[in-house]
This record gives sequence, structure tokens and C-alpha cells, in this order.
Amino acid sequence: MPRIVDHEQRRTEIVHGLWAVIGQAGIEGVTYQAVARAAGISIGRVQHYFASKEELVLAGCRALVDTATARHEAATREHDPDPWTELLALLTGPIPRDEAFRLGSAVWYAYLARGVVDADIGAIIAEAERGTAETAAELLRAAGADPSAATRLAGLAAGLAQRALVGATDPEEAAAIIEAELERVRAAG
Amino acid sequence: MPRIVDHEQRRTEIVHGLWAVIGQAGIEGVTYQAVARAAGISIGRVQHYFASKEELVLAGCRALVDTATARHEAATREHDPDPWTELLALLTGPIPRDEAFRLGSAVWYAYLARGVVDADIGAIIAEAERGTAETAAELLRAAGADPSAATRLAGLAAGLAQRALVGATDPEEAAAIIEAELERVRAAG
Repeated sequence: MPRIVDHEQRRTEIVHGLWAVIGQAGIEGVTYQAVARAAGISIGRVQHYFASKEELVLAGCRALVDTATARHEAATREHDPDPWTELLALLTGPIPRDEAFRLGSAVWYAYLARGVVDADIGAIIAEAERGTAETAAELLRAAGADPSAATRLAGLAAGLAQRALVGATDPEEAAAIIEAELERVRAAG
Repeated sequence: MPRIVDHEQRRTEIVHGLWAVIGQAGIEGVTYQAVARAAGISIGRVQHYFASKEELVLAGCRALVDTATARHEAATREHDPDPWTELLALLTGPIPRDEAFRLGSAVWYAYLARGVVDADIGAIIAEAERGTAETAAELLRAAGADPSAATRLAGLAAGLAQRALVGATDPEEAAAIIEAELERVRAAG
């Protein structure tokens, strides 16, 4: 079904253009014109796929969450890891290690800030953050460890990723702290 | 010296107007007009105190850091606490517990996102985040504990504050996790 593939591909193109605009100019910098220019397509095509700017901004937030989830799933499916390895991947995954990832993180924090005053965006962000802690709890259970450490681990991971993003903590140090913390949870049984 | 007081007071008024605009419309929503309206003053007065929009936005970022520092110092000076109590105040302080604080946090994350592509803002954010870990390390040293836990504690605090802001973790639970973590560091000596 090539038309469906095309349809998804076009939406993805537009969303990538949207993220580029948000990374540079924030959510308030989003216009059909700016997104079309960033995606290298016509304004008409953006309007065809997204009936309003609000719909586009919201779709971009959902796509950001879906991309992070898909990346984590692809990384863990490949290696068929034990729960501890998967947990390490889940918690160190958000640490930005290159410029593209840094820009993606900036888009995430722009949405996070917006979510405080925009209920629709806030709901997507909250669900994603809850999902991280829930996945962590499931993996701890699968590993036979205490799932009550999940929120602490999810918080630690989010905070260290943030520190790495702003350049307050080295990315390698952030990953090492998370790894040591997991070792400790594992040793506690 | 009433004129100096006035001067500072006027700048503070304008910065508060700026934060209100950023909270609602993001950094890209900042115009002299919007800030003047939010502060209830004339556009001319905003221009008198801040020669450019960029200068105003940057001053607002510095003022946000200074306000957080001043609040922490006032809270700890009052009670003349031991290092553990001060550490707890430092690490649980950023957890948003009311709507005004939530809006302030949204402004902080808007700056954080902007700091990825704006070097001047990025430098202020990085310095502030480094400062938190350095203060935590000093307090751990003063308490006779291992200062190497400082980055982990600062990361945990930032991540849990973020989870509380988006509604993924209850503020009381976030504070309890930090308190338990400090107890653990204290017990380890």
C-alpha cells in the first residue's frame, strides 16, 4: 500500500521540520511557513496534513515520545537483553551524547515548559514520564528486585540527562552514576 | 538612597512581567509590548531599563537563578540549620508545590530549552546547575560525609522536581525519596 506509506512518510517529514523550528525558535516560533521551509516542502502540503498549527504542535509532541519509545524497543530487541541490561538502556538512553540528540532534548524541554500551561501537551508529557517509571518497575520485577526503586531511578535518570544536556555533568559520568546506582539496587536484591 | 531602590524595584517589576510572558507564551513570545502589558507599565519604561529584548531575556534568566539562590539562603539563614537540614532544603526546594512555583518552573525549563541553542543563556543555566552540585558537595563535607554523592543527589533532585512539575510523581513522594536518599548517604558516613 504505497499511498499509506507515503502518507506516513509525509507526516514524518513535516514533524521533523517542526522539531527543527521548535529547537531553534521554540513552540511559539512555529508557523506553517517556518515548518514548510524547514521541511523543504510547500505551505499547502503542511496545511493538507495538519489542519491547524495546534494539531501539528501536538502531533510533534506525541511523535517525540513515540520516537524515544521505538528507539528503546529497537535497541533492546536487537540484543534480547536481561532485565538489568534493558533497565540500564532505558535509564541512560535520554543522556544526550551528540548534537542531534541535544537538539531533540531541547525540543522535549520546550514541550515540557509548554505543558505547564497547555493541558493537552501536559497530558502527553506526564504519561511519558509515568511510562518510564512503570517500565522501570516492570523490569525490576522481572529481575526479581524491589520495584519501589523505580521512581527514584526514573528521577535520577531524568535529572542526570538534564545536567548532561546543559553541560553541568559529563555524559559519561552521568551514565556511570546510573550504572553504579543499578548495581546497588541489584546488590540489595 | 531612594533612587537606587527605585531603579532596582523597576527592573524587578519588569522582570516579573517578563516571566509572566515567558510562562504563557515562551521566550519567543517576548516583546516589549507584551512585557509592558504584563508589568502594567509603559513600553517606554521597559525600553529605558533594557536596551534590547535579548538583554531583557538574559537579565530574566540571571534573576531567576538569583531568586532561587536568595530563597534558599533566606530559608537556611532563618533556622541556622545543620548541614543535613540545609542539604535537604537545597534538594527539595525545586519541587513545585503551588501554581506560582509551577509557572516559575515552566520559565526555567523554557530557558533550559533555549540554552541549548543560545550560548549566553546556556552558560547561566550550566553555572546554576554546577552550583547546586558544588553546594551539595560542600554541605556533605561540612557534615563529614562523602562529597562524591553530590552530583547524584543534584541529579536526583532535578529529575524528581521535573517529574513533580509534569504530574508524574506526587510532590510529597518526590520529597520523601530525596529525604530517604539523604538518610542513606548519612548512614553510609
